[in-house]
Amino acid sequence: MDRSHVRAAATRLHGRVVRTPLVRVPALDALAGRELFLKAENLQRIGAFKARGALHAALRLTPEARARGLLTYSSGNHAQAVALAARELGTHATIAMPTDAPPIKLAAVRALGAEVVLAGTTSAQRQAAALEIQARQGGTMIPPFDHADIIAGQGTATLELIEQCAELGVSLDALLVPCGGGGLVAGAAIVCHGSGTAVYSVEPVGCDAMARSLEAGARVSVEPAPTLADGLKPVQVGELNFSIARQALAGGLRVDDDALARALVRLLVHGKLLVEPSGAAALAAAMSDALPPSCRRVGVLLSGGNVEPSLVASLLQRSEAVA
Amino acid sequence: MDRSHVRAAATRLHGRVVRTPLVRVPALDALAGRELFLKAENLQRIGAFKARGALHAALRLTPEARARGLLTYSSGNHAQAVALAARELGTHATIAMPTDAPPIKLAAVRALGAEVVLAGTTSAQRQAAALEIQARQGGTMIPPFDHADIIAGQGTATLELIEQCAELGVSLDALLVPCGGGGLVAGAAIVCHGSGTAVYSVEPVGCDAMARSLEAGARVSVEPAPTLADGLKPVQVGELNFSIARQALAGGLRVDDDALARALVRLLVHGKLLVEPSGAAALAAAMSDALPPSCRRVGVLLSGGNVEPSLVASLLQRSEAVA
Repeated sequence: MDRSHVRAAATRLHGRVVRTPLVRVPALDALAGRELFLKAENLQRIGAFKARGALHAALRLTPEARARGLLTYSSGNHAQAVALAARELGTHATIAMPTDAPPIKLAAVRALGAEVVLAGTTSAQRQAAALEIQARQGGTMIPPFDHADIIAGQGTATLELIEQCAELGVSLDALLVPCGGGGLVAGAAIVCHGSGTAVYSVEPVGCDAMARSLEAGARVSVEPAPTLADGLKPVQVGELNFSIARQALAGGLRVDDDALARALVRLLVHGKLLVEPSGAAALAAAMSDALPPSCRRVGVLLSGGNVEPSLVASLLQRSEAVA
Repeated sequence: MDRSHVRAAATRLHGRVVRTPLVRVPALDALAGRELFLKAENLQRIGAFKARGALHAALRLTPEARARGLLTYSSGNHAQAVALAARELGTHATIAMPTDAPPIKLAAVRALGAEVVLAGTTSAQRQAAALEIQARQGGTMIPPFDHADIIAGQGTATLELIEQCAELGVSLDALLVPCGGGGLVAGAAIVCHGSGTAVYSVEPVGCDAMARSLEAGARVSVEPAPTLADGLKPVQVGELNFSIARQALAGGLRVDDDALARALVRLLVHGKLLVEPSGAAALAAAMSDALPPSCRRVGVLLSGGNVEPSLVASLLQRSEAVA
């Protein structure tokens, strides 16, 4: 895969996804001690970048494959994305979701007209449930991250970010990308490869499947630790995702819950943008010492904004002093 | 004044203010029963549209007038805007602010390098304080709303909104604009005059100086009632503002605190954008019966986002059920 695949995806997605704004927030620059260029994918359709990959993968199917319906397994935003793709392309979707999925995400999937099947709490359990449904009633699986069409679709967010920076006359030293299964990261790595922009994955402490795999030189599994970032808890990153990442990533960074909460609150107070904890991961890393000081101009992917209002309220109250 | 004045202001402001995004949120459209086109001036410099008018007015001064320093009186966002204009144009600013101004707004003005003088709680008290300082030490007053250069600058937000709608092939039936002293409203009225887009001012119940003046056919004063919308509490709208409004507004709408709180929370949950209560006024009206049902495509000015985190937390908790 190379940049041409992402460009082709951007052409296919034209008019179907939002060209989200690139946002500058001077107060956050001051806190980070760097210039931050924030890509607001929380303003994307369904509130997260996942709309890009799912729509792109569905657009690449034959009409026959689409007509059989779409299936997937997801803890949240990819579920909404596949539901949106099915509605938009005139077919139906069946989605295996965890029994502990945030209510706001369950409601959103159902509001888009998809059928939800609740299945366990791990990714393996819901994948098994989706495969069982597929064996029984047919349909086309749209996997959450380990697929070339998904990666190319997610890469369009980075393609836009780089274009929007170029319009400002800016070339980035680094780009920080939240990492779950590695779809967004792999897409970013492909777009930035050879460009002089160093791409870093960002994961919650204890959910660092990508960072550990990069360090080991091979995919390793983790037992995900508890984290505020419910979207960044895969046991393992994708195979294709890792094969791209190991060639093209500058490294894997880790952020803890305190840093995630602080980044979410600071972005809300100073930048007026709401992200979910997973969506704050890259910003948290940009405001930490983990990123080399030589990275002065830094792109930050704000990956999504689907979060329970009660959690936002409690983080705002807890963090009043740090904002 | 006509549209050419606003176009000239846009040319002067080019590169100095943010062309804020026009945001579409399907969930809000569904709640409103209309198509809403949201102009996100909460993402403007200093977090509010006021940066436009103040920078424009300061740019129109002679170098000598600028060098004597800028003065103003404001309860909040205009104070930050004048502080920004002074810093940007290499001069100093002295700002009379109310003793009960939100701490977040006081801190922001000081962070921009301006000198703050605390003076009473009413607009008249702080205007008197600013005039007294001017008499003593000189300087150029940048009034908050009742001035052609301010109105032309604020009008650039509407000019962009109309252009951004045109890029989508959309012409608006109506445009809803929060109204304090009437700077943003007068600018919008000038831009939309004769275009087929009906402009409505939106004020808090009991702070309805514009609506009452429109109904009376002459400027009337009000004793502002308590409201969540601390930016929309003038005793009287501006003289020039009213003379424009009476010729060009379709009417004045009113929203209560419940509607403001609901709009703020819904925008945050569904649209991922934080506004202050004043900034939610137009959205609150768009989701109410006050706007004629014939208004199907409606522009909504989200005027600013500078709000205490603790207030947002409490509104989120109170409104959990309604989101």
